[in-house]
Amino acid sequence: PFGHSCQMLGIVVGLCSFLISRVGEDWIFLILLGLVMALVSWVMDFCIALCLQAQKWMYGGLDSNLVLQYLAWVTYPVVLISFSAGFTHIVAPQAAGSGIPEMKTILRGVVLKEYLTLKTFVAKVIGLTCALGSGMPLGKEGPFVHIASLCAALLSKFMSLFGGIYENESRNIEMLAAACAVGVGCCFAAPIGGVLFSIEVTSTFFAVRNYWRGFFAATFSAFIFRVLAVWNRDEETITALFKTRFRLDFPFDLQELPAFAVIGIASGFGGALFVYLNRLIVQFIRKQKAINKFLMKKRLLYPALVTLLISTLTFPPGFGQFMAGQLTQKESLVTLLDNRTWAKQGIAEEFEYIGHAAAWKHPQANVFVTLVVFIVMKFWMSALATTIPVPCGAFMPVFVIGAAFGRLVGESMAAWFPEGIHSDGVVYSIVPGGYAVVGAAALSGAVTHTVSTAVIVFELTGQISHILPIMIAVILANAVAQSLQPSIYDSIIRIKKLPYLPELGWGHHEKYNIRVEDIMVRDVRYITLNCTYRDLHDVLLTERLKTLALVESTESMILLGSIERAQLQTLLSQQLGRPRRLEYLRQQAQNERKHMSVASTPSSEEGNHKVNQEVRFQVSGWAIAEWEEQQLDEQVNFNNCKIDPAPFQLVERTSLHKTHTIFSLLGLDHAYVTSIGRLIGVVSLREAIEGSVTVKGVKVRPPLASFRDSGTSSSDAEVTELHKLWNRHTNLTLPRDPQPSDSDEKSQ
Amino acid sequence: PFGHSCQMLGIVVGLCSFLISRVGEDWIFLILLGLVMALVSWVMDFCIALCLQAQKWMYGGLDSNLVLQYLAWVTYPVVLISFSAGFTHIVAPQAAGSGIPEMKTILRGVVLKEYLTLKTFVAKVIGLTCALGSGMPLGKEGPFVHIASLCAALLSKFMSLFGGIYENESRNIEMLAAACAVGVGCCFAAPIGGVLFSIEVTSTFFAVRNYWRGFFAATFSAFIFRVLAVWNRDEETITALFKTRFRLDFPFDLQELPAFAVIGIASGFGGALFVYLNRLIVQFIRKQKAINKFLMKKRLLYPALVTLLISTLTFPPGFGQFMAGQLTQKESLVTLLDNRTWAKQGIAEEFEYIGHAAAWKHPQANVFVTLVVFIVMKFWMSALATTIPVPCGAFMPVFVIGAAFGRLVGESMAAWFPEGIHSDGVVYSIVPGGYAVVGAAALSGAVTHTVSTAVIVFELTGQISHILPIMIAVILANAVAQSLQPSIYDSIIRIKKLPYLPELGWGHHEKYNIRVEDIMVRDVRYITLNCTYRDLHDVLLTERLKTLALVESTESMILLGSIERAQLQTLLSQQLGRPRRLEYLRQQAQNERKHMSVASTPSSEEGNHKVNQEVRFQVSGWAIAEWEEQQLDEQVNFNNCKIDPAPFQLVERTSLHKTHTIFSLLGLDHAYVTSIGRLIGVVSLREAIEGSVTVKGVKVRPPLASFRDSGTSSSDAEVTELHKLWNRHTNLTLPRDPQPSDSDEKSQ
Repeated sequence: PFGHSCQMLGIVVGLCSFLISRVGEDWIFLILLGLVMALVSWVMDFCIALCLQAQKWMYGGLDSNLVLQYLAWVTYPVVLISFSAGFTHIVAPQAAGSGIPEMKTILRGVVLKEYLTLKTFVAKVIGLTCALGSGMPLGKEGPFVHIASLCAALLSKFMSLFGGIYENESRNIEMLAAACAVGVGCCFAAPIGGVLFSIEVTSTFFAVRNYWRGFFAATFSAFIFRVLAVWNRDEETITALFKTRFRLDFPFDLQELPAFAVIGIASGFGGALFVYLNRLIVQFIRKQKAINKFLMKKRLLYPALVTLLISTLTFPPGFGQFMAGQLTQKESLVTLLDNRTWAKQGIAEEFEYIGHAAAWKHPQANVFVTLVVFIVMKFWMSALATTIPVPCGAFMPVFVIGAAFGRLVGESMAAWFPEGIHSDGVVYSIVPGGYAVVGAAALSGAVTHTVSTAVIVFELTGQISHILPIMIAVILANAVAQSLQPSIYDSIIRIKKLPYLPELGWGHHEKYNIRVEDIMVRDVRYITLNCTYRDLHDVLLTERLKTLALVESTESMILLGSIERAQLQTLLSQQLGRPRRLEYLRQQAQNERKHMSVASTPSSEEGNHKVNQEVRFQVSGWAIAEWEEQQLDEQVNFNNCKIDPAPFQLVERTSLHKTHTIFSLLGLDHAYVTSIGRLIGVVSLREAIEGSVTVKGVKVRPPLASFRDSGTSSSDAEVTELHKLWNRHTNLTLPRDPQPSDSDEKSQ
Repeated sequence: PFGHSCQMLGIVVGLCSFLISRVGEDWIFLILLGLVMALVSWVMDFCIALCLQAQKWMYGGLDSNLVLQYLAWVTYPVVLISFSAGFTHIVAPQAAGSGIPEMKTILRGVVLKEYLTLKTFVAKVIGLTCALGSGMPLGKEGPFVHIASLCAALLSKFMSLFGGIYENESRNIEMLAAACAVGVGCCFAAPIGGVLFSIEVTSTFFAVRNYWRGFFAATFSAFIFRVLAVWNRDEETITALFKTRFRLDFPFDLQELPAFAVIGIASGFGGALFVYLNRLIVQFIRKQKAINKFLMKKRLLYPALVTLLISTLTFPPGFGQFMAGQLTQKESLVTLLDNRTWAKQGIAEEFEYIGHAAAWKHPQANVFVTLVVFIVMKFWMSALATTIPVPCGAFMPVFVIGAAFGRLVGESMAAWFPEGIHSDGVVYSIVPGGYAVVGAAALSGAVTHTVSTAVIVFELTGQISHILPIMIAVILANAVAQSLQPSIYDSIIRIKKLPYLPELGWGHHEKYNIRVEDIMVRDVRYITLNCTYRDLHDVLLTERLKTLALVESTESMILLGSIERAQLQTLLSQQLGRPRRLEYLRQQAQNERKHMSVASTPSSEEGNHKVNQEVRFQVSGWAIAEWEEQQLDEQVNFNNCKIDPAPFQLVERTSLHKTHTIFSLLGLDHAYVTSIGRLIGVVSLREAIEGSVTVKGVKVRPPLASFRDSGTSSSDAEVTELHKLWNRHTNLTLPRDPQPSDSDEKSQ
């Protein structure tokens, strides 16, 4: 039976290879990615819904006792969030947070270790499900981008089992870009918005051919995601996730546009404030050393405390009654996008609050108060909740707050103009739901610095009739927010000190006037073509750069190329390493033996042997030190060394603007500044990043800049190697090899 | 009064400068661009509508006499098209055609002369208005992209009057990219689709920061464009251009998806066929020398003949009755996207054809026949009409054909399933209009190789409910069409032989295996640091490349940089040019005079003078030849020469794929292949383009590749200069300057 299953497996593998070679790996890969992500998204949504239902059920069942009810309401999310934080911390701490900042860095060509592994995948999926199941104001968009990228990375590893060209690095990056689109696409069932949003948040320069892949995979994924809902009898056919039913014939009046513009501008300020508040909280907790120390010890305390605070405030019979606390995030959004007007209108019949919308009604306070309280409370709660170290994003909470703000403006407008604004005969009353859509797009656009939230909104609601108000509001919100604060993702990049080249603001003229010569480092470490191993050794010990410049000579300074640090370390260890050392010892021994056989008489052989050996050891100990000195003084032989003969060069007059563009375009790490072939300076990415802190586990590897076949050697290991050499050299210890000549002969 | 108006102008200019410096040039520029384009678009639409109305009025007024009616129907478009063709040809022949292929080339960094001038603007606007007013199956999308770019170029020239940084080349290219988005955006009132479509058809790599500008300008433009319609009382409020009213609750059934997929695949084949047919017609006319000669003589004959043929066939009382010939393009589209079902259904009551939809009804033939005839006839008519040398695009005709094809499939489905497909209780009948939308997006996507037609369709119809069918159909259509034919724009690029680097197909593995060493030119012309002016001279005469490599010496071949041809020509002309020549002559004269003043006696001065002068001229004639030889043998002094010290370098093992990416990314013209600093070959863009024909008026200037401050010197003038020098050198003629010493002293 085992042989049989093996045979079966062989056939399956063969079939797969055949399919792959026929249809093209890219297509199969994208289809599989879309399929897997749709399933993941659907299953997660299902689990999250179950969790939220369980909480409601518990809360509803205990309505006889307020204290028990409160305990149930509070304990449930605290347990879930604590579990999520603990699980994430133990399995893969990289899984915490949004993931978009890290993907942005990875797509730029930086290798973040452990970011795309199976462990992280498991931690992210389970952690996110628990976090969202707790009902905290957290989002799933950012984590989904990360999950999709994880999926793509794992899938490409899996597919390389069937052969193919999945080792290519730039190809991998292209696939990751498509994966980001899939992530957003299947999270909101918004393929177009997904592609555009992922481009905006992760790329600086975008290859249009990737666009295609992203569209294909995201559409397929969104399709499967929605088909699953139909098959599960949740829906009759494929429609939008948060379908609205605004009237088509007269969506809004031209005279309402100022109100939409106000929403846009206010959202811009709100978005900037959100980013600022989020950063402030993180920095406050970091700076307060006492708090920090305490929290570091009890890692789960901070998430638990934050959750306790937030869930206490939203407790429906308590303060929660003023902010529709009983509604989940999804329910809030559905009610906010409601077709009807909530505020009492001049018309006699009062509005009937049906279903979830009833939560917004309060006997004492009117709808406006509920909305204002909701906006203010959710605002700081979301900013606080997103600092919890669990997998979570900020998009959805911000989206809901924006919708609430839009609804507030809309309801005010409806109260102000009960007959509508339009003057020509027909009464077209104002649609506050339309304002909610505009507000949602504007605030989420302001926080993320994207315009494509507009498209996401169209796809989420299934209506495009408010396109102009939405576009105007989103653009205004972006204009305001971008001039005040970085995007939430760039803010996290700065907080986490990820190695990312920040964008240059546009409209600033200085960047055209600053030149490379103003920022370059003039004291470049280099090696010359005729240097000795000792020079090499010295340079390696004093210089920490990943690549070193190779010049013709100190006089001419003509740049010949650059050599990776690892290559130089190999050169040095080859020269001083064990094989050559042993070879030398063997020769020494042979020489000595010859000498001995002449000098010593055969009769005294046995007695002399021990003494001789000791002498030999001492002699060779000194000899090896001398030998090392000799070796270090030899000229370096670069023949077997991989040299990058065309490192990127700039001239001193290149403007900062151009330099920035080129660095972003090519994903450069550093560039040499030359003047007619002569090396005069170096500019590196690290300098451009403020702080220039070396992040642990980060290795900058530009995707396009280097044209050599770079090996996959781990540089850490080689550093150790070098240190060993160094210690050996200073201590002049002898290699403790029992059979020097034996092993040497084998290796030859 | 003149002084007063001058003062006023001064104040206005001052105010403008103040505004610009405060708000930022970019914003002002984009707002102005959007405003101007919206106005242009609206006025043109108005004129086109007038023209079409006039034709209808003439045709309608003559309904007593069929012959007169035919003459009126046919003469009107023939006259308009002929005028358009003639006007375009006389004013600016560059205005003919779509403009997107040229913009694609320009955005890649190639300078096409005369493409962005006021003359071209006038020709394009008036030519396009007449062409579209004729009622031929022509589009306005492509020309609008060109018109918007023209607007941007003219506007930036205009704005530089008020100071600012509008000279920056890369900035100009960014503004042109935004202009392309505006063009599409205000043509269809589709800002998002406009931005995406313009990115897809013009860019290979896209800077995300431009995206923002495009969105801003396109939204503003679309807004103004639609507001004008409201102000003009054409519409009550801002809505979509071709608003549809499909039901929202159940837009389509899952089981209808195969039909949508069929539309997508068929559209893919149809799109490829359209591109092929279009190219075939152009090539046929070019190859048939007899036809070609005749047509070249009578330039207006070809447009007139084509128009005659097409308008004869659409004559409503004639063959036109089977293809809704009386409808304009816009009317056809409106009826095709109609909400109702045309085919007789099982239900008793027959469908009432109201308004324009009546044109599709024929007493003898049913709707299916009319639709099939329409599709087949319009297909070749559009392919033919777009070859007429007037400003015109192919997008809109293709869009209408696609809609007709979709409608045909939809009507068939409706006839096949009169009760709808959905089985659970409620009857949801099939909506053929939805199929028409899908077909329109799929066919236009296939012809242009874009996915964003889907977004354009949403914005045009104001409904997004069919998003999934549309996305699936567009993606399938693209997959089929891209594997069969280039896009219509790439096809035109090939026909016109514009210098554009074609895309590498993806999924092809060869590109990873071909290396630079396989395609590079090994016989590189270069100049050495210690070369003589004679060497320079020889190289310039034998080599036609725009830049030349500078190496240290022939032995070392170490690449030091590259020098522009123009720079070398300047060097040579400085060495041999008139000033030095005159300087030499003056010195000669002085020497001689000294000699003379010693040799000749003062008394014989007057008599000797004439003789002396003649002798001197002869002597200096010979001397100058000798002097030139001397000068040419001198070593070149590169001190005052602009050298690009960091030309782009590759190594021989770089793959073709990587090379292609880098060339596209940086807009390179050529790259040197080096091996440890040694020059071993060169790869240039021209080689990559098949045919490698030098197009007249085309000058490749990479936007990012060169880091020197390149002057704006015209190379043509300098070639002439060199030839003059050459002639002078070979003929040994004397410069005919009457007062050599005088002018020389002045210049010092």
